[in-house]
Amino acid sequence: MFYHDSKLQYEVKVDKPNPMFAKMLQQAIGGIEGEIRVCLQYLFQAWGARGPVKYRDMLMETGTEEIGHIEMLATAVALNLETAPNEMKDEMAADSPIIEAIMGGANPRHYLSAGLAAMAADSNGVPFNGSWVVASGNLAADMYANVMAESTGRVLATRLWHATDDKGMKDMLSFLIARDTMHQNQWMAVIEELGGPKGAMPIPNSFPQSEENSKFAYSFLSTNIATNVTGNGEAPASQGRWASGESIDGKGEFSFEKAMPFGEKPVLGPPAPAGFAQTEQMTDQDGFIKSVFRNL
Amino acid sequence: MFYHDSKLQYEVKVDKPNPMFAKMLQQAIGGIEGEIRVCLQYLFQAWGARGPVKYRDMLMETGTEEIGHIEMLATAVALNLETAPNEMKDEMAADSPIIEAIMGGANPRHYLSAGLAAMAADSNGVPFNGSWVVASGNLAADMYANVMAESTGRVLATRLWHATDDKGMKDMLSFLIARDTMHQNQWMAVIEELGGPKGAMPIPNSFPQSEENSKFAYSFLSTNIATNVTGNGEAPASQGRWASGESIDGKGEFSFEKAMPFGEKPVLGPPAPAGFAQTEQMTDQDGFIKSVFRNL
Amino acid sequence: MFYHDSKLQYEVKVDKPNPMFAKMLQQAIGGIEGEIRVCLQYLFQAWGARGPVKYRDMLMETGTEEIGHIEMLATAVALNLETAPNEMKDEMAADSPIIEAIMGGANPRHYLSAGLAAMAADSNGVPFNGSWVVASGNLAADMYANVMAESTGRVLATRLWHATDDKGMKDMLSFLIARDTMHQNQWMAVIEELGGPKGAMPIPNSFPQSEENSKFAYSFLSTNIATNVTGNGEAPASQGRWASGESIDGKGEFSFEKAMPFGEKPVLGPPAPAGFAQTEQMTDQDGFIKSVFRNL
Amino acid sequence: MFYHDSKLQYEVKVDKPNPMFAKMLQQAIGGIEGEIRVCLQYLFQAWGARGPVKYRDMLMETGTEEIGHIEMLATAVALNLETAPNEMKDEMAADSPIIEAIMGGANPRHYLSAGLAAMAADSNGVPFNGSWVVASGNLAADMYANVMAESTGRVLATRLWHATDDKGMKDMLSFLIARDTMHQNQWMAVIEELGGPKGAMPIPNSFPQSEENSKFAYSFLSTNIATNVTGNGEAPASQGRWASGESIDGKGEFSFEKAMPFGEKPVLGPPAPAGFAQTEQMTDQDGFIKSVFRNL
Amino acid sequence: MFYHDSKLQYEVKVDKPNPMFAKMLQQAIGGIEGEIRVCLQYLFQAWGARGPVKYRDMLMETGTEEIGHIEMLATAVALNLETAPNEMKDEMAADSPIIEAIMGGANPRHYLSAGLAAMAADSNGVPFNGSWVVASGNLAADMYANVMAESTGRVLATRLWHATDDKGMKDMLSFLIARDTMHQNQWMAVIEELGGPKGAMPIPNSFPQSEENSKFAYSFLSTNIATNVTGNGEAPASQGRWASGESIDGKGEFSFEKAMPFGEKPVLGPPAPAGFAQTEQMTDQDGFIKSVFRNL
Amino acid sequence: MFYHDSKLQYEVKVDKPNPMFAKMLQQAIGGIEGEIRVCLQYLFQAWGARGPVKYRDMLMETGTEEIGHIEMLATAVALNLETAPNEMKDEMAADSPIIEAIMGGANPRHYLSAGLAAMAADSNGVPFNGSWVVASGNLAADMYANVMAESTGRVLATRLWHATDDKGMKDMLSFLIARDTMHQNQWMAVIEELGGPKGAMPIPNSFPQSEENSKFAYSFLSTNIATNVTGNGEAPASQGRWASGESIDGKGEFSFEKAMPFGEKPVLGPPAPAGFAQTEQMTDQDGFIKSVFRNL
Repeated sequence: MFYHDSKLQYEVKVDKPNPMFAKMLQQAIGGIEGEIRVCLQYLFQAWGARGPVKYRDMLMETGTEEIGHIEMLATAVALNLETAPNEMKDEMAADSPIIEAIMGGANPRHYLSAGLAAMAADSNGVPFNGSWVVASGNLAADMYANVMAESTGRVLATRLWHATDDKGMKDMLSFLIARDTMHQNQWMAVIEELGGPKGAMPIPNSFPQSEENSKFAYSFLSTNIATNVTGNGEAPASQGRWASGESIDGKGEFSFEKAMPFGEKPVLGPPAPAGFAQTEQMTDQDGFIKSVFRNL
Repeated sequence: MFYHDSKLQYEVKVDKPNPMFAKMLQQAIGGIEGEIRVCLQYLFQAWGARGPVKYRDMLMETGTEEIGHIEMLATAVALNLETAPNEMKDEMAADSPIIEAIMGGANPRHYLSAGLAAMAADSNGVPFNGSWVVASGNLAADMYANVMAESTGRVLATRLWHATDDKGMKDMLSFLIARDTMHQNQWMAVIEELGGPKGAMPIPNSFPQSEENSKFAYSFLSTNIATNVTGNGEAPASQGRWASGESIDGKGEFSFEKAMPFGEKPVLGPPAPAGFAQTEQMTDQDGFIKSVFRNL
Repeated sequence: MFYHDSKLQYEVKVDKPNPMFAKMLQQAIGGIEGEIRVCLQYLFQAWGARGPVKYRDMLMETGTEEIGHIEMLATAVALNLETAPNEMKDEMAADSPIIEAIMGGANPRHYLSAGLAAMAADSNGVPFNGSWVVASGNLAADMYANVMAESTGRVLATRLWHATDDKGMKDMLSFLIARDTMHQNQWMAVIEELGGPKGAMPIPNSFPQSEENSKFAYSFLSTNIATNVTGNGEAPASQGRWASGESIDGKGEFSFEKAMPFGEKPVLGPPAPAGFAQTEQMTDQDGFIKSVFRNL
Repeated sequence: MFYHDSKLQYEVKVDKPNPMFAKMLQQAIGGIEGEIRVCLQYLFQAWGARGPVKYRDMLMETGTEEIGHIEMLATAVALNLETAPNEMKDEMAADSPIIEAIMGGANPRHYLSAGLAAMAADSNGVPFNGSWVVASGNLAADMYANVMAESTGRVLATRLWHATDDKGMKDMLSFLIARDTMHQNQWMAVIEELGGPKGAMPIPNSFPQSEENSKFAYSFLSTNIATNVTGNGEAPASQGRWASGESIDGKGEFSFEKAMPFGEKPVLGPPAPAGFAQTEQMTDQDGFIKSVFRNL
Repeated sequence: MFYHDSKLQYEVKVDKPNPMFAKMLQQAIGGIEGEIRVCLQYLFQAWGARGPVKYRDMLMETGTEEIGHIEMLATAVALNLETAPNEMKDEMAADSPIIEAIMGGANPRHYLSAGLAAMAADSNGVPFNGSWVVASGNLAADMYANVMAESTGRVLATRLWHATDDKGMKDMLSFLIARDTMHQNQWMAVIEELGGPKGAMPIPNSFPQSEENSKFAYSFLSTNIATNVTGNGEAPASQGRWASGESIDGKGEFSFEKAMPFGEKPVLGPPAPAGFAQTEQMTDQDGFIKSVFRNL
Repeated sequence: MFYHDSKLQYEVKVDKPNPMFAKMLQQAIGGIEGEIRVCLQYLFQAWGARGPVKYRDMLMETGTEEIGHIEMLATAVALNLETAPNEMKDEMAADSPIIEAIMGGANPRHYLSAGLAAMAADSNGVPFNGSWVVASGNLAADMYANVMAESTGRVLATRLWHATDDKGMKDMLSFLIARDTMHQNQWMAVIEELGGPKGAMPIPNSFPQSEENSKFAYSFLSTNIATNVTGNGEAPASQGRWASGESIDGKGEFSFEKAMPFGEKPVLGPPAPAGFAQTEQMTDQDGFIKSVFRNL
């Protein structure tokens, strides 16, 4: 279960409220790279964790920290939507900057739906979506999902940092950026414990590789028409680490090959009468009627 | 631009059609772990690629391959929804197994909306969502997004492999599982080219780390109430690789610390009159009315 | 079944078309506080009504009225997207204000997708979502869902009223605001008929309260760490009506208590082999392998 | 910021795992009536709270409690997806019941995507949607949103209670049902503090009622064609509390009136040339061409 | 504005309630082929109609009829979820068939969320989505959107008709199927008034065709690798009406040509420094650093 | 399977980058009228095609072409987000125009999430949704879905063409507009092969019309209250082609009739006890308790 502190994990100050920046900050709250996603993702991974308990506990710790990050950002949004006190004397004019801002592109729902506070949505007002919460039951897959979340999350945070000149906002973001650094390292540390790429990959490592079609397990298949058909084309993709040498998981040798069809042209059966296709679809390629309708 | 072959990349055979397995296969088509996602993800990453061209080309190659995987799975769904030929003699009865299957939990839209074919949706019929397509403009972040996609994708494929006894389906899946092996390795190979975790992390590596709040960049902050408050509790999370030693990115030293608030209790201003809060919200903590309404 | 009148329920005039206000009005059409939601909500409640028929009929009446409100707002959007007649002389220039408006933050789809008319979406262009339509089959729960809809709806309408200086728009909104006043009262009148909070609550009142865990039915559980753990903290939440005195439903006595765990630390079983977790997850806390793979 | 306890708020035991009940429990996690919604709703209301601080604090307390409810339910889902220990001897057969269950209608993603654990989705696998999180900035509107959430939530919980025979599950639900009882009362207690319906309504009470069109503020408008047109029909809706007597907010008198159009038939202008309507739309009702295309 | 009749447009009887058929019927209510979609689509087209008024009026007529179709289907769902009267004697057992049905694949939300009534969702429980409501402002485009809606709608209705043996349900569906027949004809009648394909196409016909790249306006471009590259392949697509002869709009001549690139390989500029790509992306193809970071 | 060419199908040049136009172009990528939709729609129709193979092949050809259109538009978005080279000298200032543009209404995610490249979303940032992909299994229904897609698509493209002055963008759009012309004709050519409206309609033509309620198959039912009830009203909708004459499908005669109820007022049974309605709902119209609760 959970407890809360009335204080924030880190100071949130806004020197110069900016409704447009409030709009941008929403990406870090309710966007796919945002804090609701990582919070729920780590907590759901913890709640469904099977295996060594330290991973469950560690996920719970950081998932709990992330609730506090949503809180910080929600506070930052609310403060960016406020008018500075000294402009408040003329009470009713106090909202004009907001309405002007909306007229100039700010999020209208910050005023219309939320009364100048944060929402569970991204910077375009698209609601947070639970499908982004990845908890696969496979620890290594989940760790890479977490690395990805913290990587795109830190990219987002640095862009937000760059987009503002507000000293308070830059300070808050420099804290969040640092936490993303830690969390990238943290999930990679689990991968290291799991043996690194050589131990963990291919994920899941519990599936017997003898059951996969080994002929295709370490080949780069080039679909570039220059490579494949005319045969005289460039093949920039053949120049990479993925085209030759030992595979990263240490279990194969990379090769570079032309993609080509190993299957046949698929032939589906005629439509089932009860599917009510057009009658013209009931004939086969030679024009014979294959499916005959009778009194239904 | 793109071309197509009439043949499949790999053979797709269904020995014993099974509408419930058709339902499950949809996860690999239109689910978050599925082929539409990776196809569009790699193509969008290619189309927006800036920097060394070989990455763009390589992404385009594999994105193009993935279209063919959607095709294979869509074909597999259609075949699993067909009634075996020898049962087709009594034409109108041909659909009974389908309707019975729907009555027993199969996807009703496979019959109602698609006429016994595949859809751009997951195994619960939830439509594919473009928000899953990650292309951040940062190559390393994108590579981890791709590792994650192929890891959860291979986990999914192995579970599908396990859930069927159909020889044709197992064969198709053993091919797709192998391709996922390659693709996990392929994206990791790019990370290796980018210097591995030590070179690439923290992502983005172009943000000057001097600007992040370094005090919090390598500390595990424990939110466990046992660790933090009572001080006498267990702390399983302190036992991991992430709690001490050199950080994975080689740029810091891990530490394990109690999470505590560094910020204050947030105080938002009174509601703007134009937000039409309840009048009771207009008073401050001491009961003074801070916002006064006049004739609007 | 339904009929229509060619006339509007109330006059809709726009003195000075404003594409940005058209964008804001969309919240009242296709947003969660909007008219499509209440229209479908009341109609679905009516169509599924079981019990005294007067509630069904009343819901049908008001649901039907709401279709006319969507119509009024859709008309208002279309008129706000028109260029005033006197600016129409130079025909092709007629659209310049629109395109300029889009470039300045108006909804691009008002031009691109709708040809200068309303859409079934909110003020950020997020489509109406059927999940907002609440019809639970419990009359009291539904009435509170309706009070909530009309309360957030009236808040929205007053904010729209404030955001415009257009006399026609203010007049239309003053009508819609009045209807929201009526509808708030109307749903509360049903609650009164159902006995008010003392008769209706806890909702559903048909569930035998003897089956609920009565120990927790009227206690405020404080999760504030100051209250709970250090024990020396402030507890502002203890000052409210909810912390002592007779409960609102008249069936208990409020108390204020420390939240604490009554359950244990959860222990899930090891991963099922067929879930293809990482092999490292197959060991228990003491390192013994609990799940053994055999030939699959 | 937030802390966590390793223990659950209340015991979660499953005597007889049941994948179908796991599917049903998802509604209480990621459905619109579920715990993620109330958790985020109360927290966002707290984070954006303006006005007397005790409401902010109280919302934070209960929002924090709700995280623990998600945890309990997620644990319950995971346990319902486990095979009972005594069936685990034959390891590989351990999953058969799950796959059989999926074939019979259980959520395929519980196996395919989550590896036998909970997801941030409803009982049909539809992802949690952030649009459900209502925080309007108006305290009374938010309280009714909360009453509605706890009312539909308690209705859901009683139905889940009824749908299971599992003693552990019934016990857990009897606790959650009790908490819903408290929370319904709690939000009503705030309404009482705000003056009850007479003080709080119409919501928002800060909007000057002189600005609403008072003629329509307390009239039930009957759209029933029997009432309106033929004039000889039944009018069951005229029998309710909403049709006569003092209004619930004490500020008006209910009346029952025929709905009729007060507006005109709307006339929109001709399509703007740049909207590229069909040329036939460019003529007015008399056939004159109003919009003329020139060389674009 | 709108009125309602207490009676249904057509009789709705269910001889043998069937929760699984209730689930299937939801597709016709809240699915993309369903009645909420056509209802809102025709009404939004009417509300935004510009040009000859008879189209606006006609759209309003049929949009209003469709509300009554949602009502019929919602009634059918509610009746299919009821237990037949003679089984009602043992009151509490009355729900057992429902819960059994859910356990066997019926929609759990029909019980859990709706209390045995219809919802604004499709047959998989996916909510209705406002994005399906097409109203483009171009009359011909809208008419084809309507033809498409009624065509997929009638296909759906015939499949539902086939899936049930219930006499009442078959009768109701035979009415709805007939209405779909009328509506398909109705929208085509508008197309005929607009001149048929020769007059209306290419849609929009108000765009001067001189501005389109006429070289590509009537050519079938074959992307089949057999056609294009090897040159020795089959070309089944060359056999169709679209490959030669006068175009359907009468404004061109069909031809069959090899698809080939007319553009170049795209070259995007280097990443903007503020995008925080990886530093490795800052070099050009020759390894020169194009974007230089300075102290930010 | 699929191959790719490194070159674009048609040249994409941007003379003057414009982030607002990049935002608008997104509608043609990830909007309901956009290229991802048609691409997946034609491919899914091909992959599920049953009946004469030439349709499958033709759909595959054009679906493959559309991938190249997504590519062109994605390239156009990326180029519109670039700063012109001569403004790049001061490196760090290079992004200012972007941030200014976002502050003025451009899509914030183009910078924050995509690093100045295209996304799988529409012009408001709403993600592409797989529900738009229509593949019904009925060839004629699918062709009308395709005509609709290309009609709304061409309307969109002409509006984009009008909204820009950029010579490169106008050229690219004139190509795409031409392709839409071809594709409208192409799908109509299939309809012609299927016998035109007289042969193909009502869709599906394989459903025996004897089973539909022929009385309602060709009647326009007027819901206009003027037509229906007062009987003295105008009836503009009676003036159309749909009101009299032979039906378009040649199988009936149009008529114009008053809509009226043929069904009864629906009566649902009392709530099932296990639905936990309010107890007040358990009484019938005469006040007798129909459902009695006993000890649960």
